[in-house]
Parts: sequence; C-alpha cells; structure tokens
Amino acid sequence: MSQHPLFATRASRMKASEIRELLKLLDQPGIISFAGGIPDPALFPADAFAQAFQQALGPELQAQALQYSVSEGYVPLRQWLAQHMREIGVACDIDNILITSGSQQALDYLGKLFLSPGDTALVGWPTYLGALAAFNAYEPRFDRLNGNQGAKEYKATAGEGAVKFAYLSADFANPTGETVDLQGREALLDLAEELDSALIEDGAYQALRYDGDPIPPILSLEQARKGSIEDCRTIYCGSFSKTLSPGLRMGWVVASKPVISQMVLLKQAADLHSATINQMAVHQVAQACFDTHIPKVRNVYRARRDVMLNAMEQHMPDGVDWTRPEGGMFIWVTLPEGMVGSDLLARALDTVKVAFVPGQAFFPDGSGANTIRLSFSNSDEATIREGIRRLGEVLRA
Amino acid sequence: MSQHPLFATRASRMKASEIRELLKLLDQPGIISFAGGIPDPALFPADAFAQAFQQALGPELQAQALQYSVSEGYVPLRQWLAQHMREIGVACDIDNILITSGSQQALDYLGKLFLSPGDTALVGWPTYLGALAAFNAYEPRFDRLNGNQGAKEYKATAGEGAVKFAYLSADFANPTGETVDLQGREALLDLAEELDSALIEDGAYQALRYDGDPIPPILSLEQARKGSIEDCRTIYCGSFSKTLSPGLRMGWVVASKPVISQMVLLKQAADLHSATINQMAVHQVAQACFDTHIPKVRNVYRARRDVMLNAMEQHMPDGVDWTRPEGGMFIWVTLPEGMVGSDLLARALDTVKVAFVPGQAFFPDGSGANTIRLSFSNSDEATIREGIRRLGEVLRA
Repeated sequence: MSQHPLFATRASRMKASEIRELLKLLDQPGIISFAGGIPDPALFPADAFAQAFQQALGPELQAQALQYSVSEGYVPLRQWLAQHMREIGVACDIDNILITSGSQQALDYLGKLFLSPGDTALVGWPTYLGALAAFNAYEPRFDRLNGNQGAKEYKATAGEGAVKFAYLSADFANPTGETVDLQGREALLDLAEELDSALIEDGAYQALRYDGDPIPPILSLEQARKGSIEDCRTIYCGSFSKTLSPGLRMGWVVASKPVISQMVLLKQAADLHSATINQMAVHQVAQACFDTHIPKVRNVYRARRDVMLNAMEQHMPDGVDWTRPEGGMFIWVTLPEGMVGSDLLARALDTVKVAFVPGQAFFPDGSGANTIRLSFSNSDEATIREGIRRLGEVLRA
Repeated sequence: MSQHPLFATRASRMKASEIRELLKLLDQPGIISFAGGIPDPALFPADAFAQAFQQALGPELQAQALQYSVSEGYVPLRQWLAQHMREIGVACDIDNILITSGSQQALDYLGKLFLSPGDTALVGWPTYLGALAAFNAYEPRFDRLNGNQGAKEYKATAGEGAVKFAYLSADFANPTGETVDLQGREALLDLAEELDSALIEDGAYQALRYDGDPIPPILSLEQARKGSIEDCRTIYCGSFSKTLSPGLRMGWVVASKPVISQMVLLKQAADLHSATINQMAVHQVAQACFDTHIPKVRNVYRARRDVMLNAMEQHMPDGVDWTRPEGGMFIWVTLPEGMVGSDLLARALDTVKVAFVPGQAFFPDGSGANTIRLSFSNSDEATIREGIRRLGEVLRA
C-alpha cells in the first residue's frame, strides 16, 4: 500500500534537499569540497568533552546524567548561558532560556509556535536553507525581507495571511557571509514594530567574528529601547554547533517568558527534553574552556578566510563578484548574469574535482541561478589555494 | 508586548500538563511517590556507558562522534536494530529504520506526517498522555479506539476529517499496564484495513515482559499477512528509554521505506539528526550487553510488581479494582464510582504522604475521574509495601 494519500497536506511541500543529496556525493576523497558548511573536526575540544562525559558518568552524577530531566533544560547550562548572553549585551535570566537540540530545533519550534497555514514569514532572499525547511512544514507563505519595503508594502502583499515574523541571521549569515550593520538592525526593529510581528534572530555564527567590532544582537538593541526582555519581540537562537561541537546537538533560545513557556510546552510534547548528559557535558566544557577555545577557532578560520579571499583576488576572472565576510564560514559568489551555478558545479566536478553549493536552493522563489556558496571552514590553507585556483581555471574556460 | 495574538492556532491547544506540574511538586523527600513513570536509575548500565563514551571520544572516533551526521541515523545502530527487530518477529533492513530522539519524537513526527487540522486520530480512552500532547500540536480530532466499533462507525463520526491513524501501545500500555492479545491485534489490523488508515504501534515497554509468552508485534502480524514490510500500514516506534537510559533520548521507528523517507525529511528540517555520540554510545552498549542487561531489569521490576499487587490484595478495600500487568511499569486502579482521583491524591498527600497520578489526564474527553495510575518501577519493595498500606488506609477512611 502507498500511505501517501494519508499524509498531511504539509507532506507535499517537504522535498529532499538537493544540497544534502549532493553533499552525500561530494564529500568523497579526491574532491576539494567547499560545499558543506561544517566545522573542522580538528578544532573540537575532544579532550575536554572526554573529561566532561567521564565526570557526568562518574558515581556522583551518573543517575542524573542518564535519567529523564526537565523540558526547559539543565539549570547550570542555562545559568552559564544567561551569563554568556549578558556578555554579548542581552540581560536575561534562566527563565528566558530554553535548551534545544541545536538551533535547527529552535527554528522548528518557532515555526510551530507562530505559523498557521497561509501565515507570512519574511526571510532573506537568499536565506538559510534549513530555516526555509523548518518553517515550510507549517505551510506559510514566504515573503522577501529587504531594506526597500516598509510595513505597508508587506502588509499589502501578505493579504489575509498575517506577517508572523521576520527571520534573519545578523552576523555572517549562511549563505552570504554578510553582516547587518547597526543602522540595519535598528531598521529591522522599526519594521517589526510597524508590522507588530516577531523577529527571529539566528545567532548561529555570532561568536565567529574575525575582525571589526562586534555589533550588539538585535535583541540587545531592542532591550536598549524597551528596558526589559519581557517587552521584546525579538527571539534569539544560539548554537554550540559552530564553536564546540555540532554532533551533540546543543542550542538555545532566548526570549520573553511567555514565548519560552509556550516553547517549553511544544518541546515537552515533541521530544520531552534534550539529552541530559549532553547538556551536562556542554555545560562543563563551556565553563572550562569556551573563552580560551573560541579564539583558537577564530584564528584558524580567519586565516582560511584570508587565504580564500586572496586566492579569489588572484584567480577569479572579471565579472565575478563576491562578499568579504567579517566572520562565519561562507563566501557568496555572484557569477556573471546568465551563468548557472549548478552547471558550473557539474563542470567543476568533472574537470577539476572542486565542489561547492549552487546558490539557487537558498532562494524561496528559485531565483539566484548565477550564485554559488563557498565554505572555507573545513579545508586547510593549501587546499583552499589549490581549489580556488582550479575554480578560476574552470570559470575562465 | 504580548506575542500571544501572533501565535499559531495550535498554541491555544497546548496546555501545561497538570501531571508534569504535579510531578515537580511530588518528587520530594519524605513522599512515597508512585507517580512518575520513570525507570530506576540504579538499573542504568552506567559503567558500560562510561566505557562507550570514552571509546567514542578516543582518538579514532572523536572527529566523527562530535560532528554532524546523517538524518537517518548511525548505520551500525540501525543495523543492530534491524537484527533486534528480526528477533522480535519483524523482518526489515536499515532503510526501514529511522533513529529518533526518544520515541516521543517519533510520535511528534508521525503527527506531523499524517495530521492536517481536523483529521481524526483514533486513540485509547485512556491512552499515553505524551501521545495526546504530540498529536495535539497538529490540531486533530481524537476519536475513541475501542473493540466495539467497526470501520463504518468510525468513518461516520470522523465525518469530513479522514481517519489518518489509530495509535496504541499493545504491550503493558501506559497508563493501564494492559496488553492487547493476539486476537485483539488481528482485529486492529482488520480495522485499519477497513478504514484504510495507518496504525501506530508504540513499543516503548515491549522488552519489559515479566511473565507469559511474548505476543508478536502488530507489525509482525501484518507482515505475516502481506509478506513484505513495504506493503504494511503499521508503523512501529521503539525506545531505549525504559531499558538502557531515557536521558540519552534514543528511540527508533520501523516502517515501509516511503514512510521512513518522508520522516527523514521531517527530521532533517526539524533537528538535522539525533546526537551522533549518543547513537554511537547506545550502539556500543546495546551490542555489548542488551541481552544480558534486560533480564536484570525484568527481574527487579517483576519483583516490585508482585509486591505491589500482593500489597493491594491485602490493603485495598472492596469496590476498588485494578489491572494485573504482565510487564511494563504501571498498575491502573479504578476507584468506586463517584470517587475522584485528584481528591484522593490531595488527601493521600496531606495525610499519608503518598503520591500517584489521577487518571483523568489520560482521557482525551476528561472522563475517568475515578481512576488513578500507580507506577512500581522506581520504588524499592519495602517502600511499595508501606505506600500501598498507607493508600489503603486513606481509601478506607
């Protein structure tokens, strides 16, 4: 029997991600891959984790580490995060924090919390593919978030579907690597006010700044306007995936208490809680070495970004343009009009064994055919130089 | 600002579980609690886990253990599960298996896969509270699954909302402790055929049988009818929470490939994958000691069940009735008509410091006021004897 006729309407919108299918093929020996947006495993604080898991499974903590725990998350980890958020400019306490299984899960729960079918979500064009996938399950309309439209225009195009939130990553966004400046952040807050919508700030790459001064999170700017987090409409999503380890699936959400309470209910119903032992281990590692570990990660990625940018200056032909990110993992390349990223990928794989992600998948409307995303996080400097040289060769051909 | 007007329609259905709020108050020193349905942490194979995590974080595996991995789940764990499922009568291969973060997450994803607002889900009256919560987020109607109705009656009451699935736990169900016999399982399959609906079999307690012969899973019986799992409408959800550890959040789903493929997409969009290192650790522990560990767990719980049943024979007054489960963690008590479980709880806490869960919360329609659930899994034998003696005292008063 085929059970497809029984599936919910959302199932027809859930499609296999071409990128992920592609990545399975690409990460093979002999290929220089700038495709996957994944951290370099050599940078994981593996010894610190080994010690942390050993401690969690020692006689004092093992019963707690292996047992059910509360949906809100492990209190010491939430305490550490409240302090961490204060350090980046957000005043909050542990009741404003929910632990999630990666920030991807936060996006799923936020889609679940805000979106009924037909509601409008404003997203970048391009934006993080995983956000589109997470929200998509709740059957929204996607509308383009850009600097040129006021609330009136958004309301008009949203029609009956209310604008529930705008979503963006303000620091070194996936896929463009771009950062929203202070003025841009204030303008986003103005827009959310006028629309009376929520604002989801994805801080997945926030800690990975390689140069320039940090810009306060949007949530911090809104607090400066309003005084208390309880009056804020911004919801901040954080992640340990790019700093400590993605394989433990540890992220968090910071928001006003009514939003967190509702998300706790969603989480309780959806997976009870994130793994107890992983929360304990991440807490111990963060406490022991977050502040010393992050600069090491930054140094390695900064050097790789510089090598990639320099190689691009040297090898990219005229008519190719790209971003100069101040942090994160990605450089976004705009090819000459009419050139197609997926065709280029096929050619690059075939002739010089270089891989990257065609940019089209990051656009909700399937535009952006002449864009590609390059990741510099998981290749060493020599490989980056050689890969970009080869890519320039294909582009000039 | 209050963001409540922005929330999706489903938010109005998500309520704080009275039981969970209650549990926070109940699990306090000085109270004998038969409330929480949680395993005894003394039975967790903590040393085996310590060894498994140490190995996963050793030089050979650490890069993999802490890195992103595929949404389907860790291949060696799925291989172990395919073999485990064959041992309990279900022939499947790893492409029929998805790893989830506990079986609770499987229920969430199954609700997401099948339910559009207004669709009908058939559930027991009473049924597992967590299943109601998981499905509820997708705004279904709940209709009562019982042995007395045929497909025609269900279709009639479902009206425009199609019956998408029936959900049940066939072995030692939470909250009743009851088991569906072979004939009952076959009748459920007949019903699902007639309704052309899916059938969700929650096997969370399946391994915890204390006496009597195992009954094949419903999925096994459907395979016997149809030959291949690919033709089956039954979806089996399993869990390591009651056998190895709930704190690692490890469960699995077994179904036909089209269902698994769709669930993989949902999982990819919702949390990417379950924690890599936990999958590796559970695989190693399951491989090393599942077959020797489970009999130990059974022996301890069997003895506690026997002590509780014996104490009830001795101390329960006339007019009180209860189930005699062949496995699992729960005994379900029916009080004399007119007596109210939540009133009894208040009195029992107040006068003799004994806690349990009032049964009403397990009924989608709020009936069942004169029922309570007792758990015997997490109290030692002397405590069970004393608690039931005190409960009898309150009931006779």
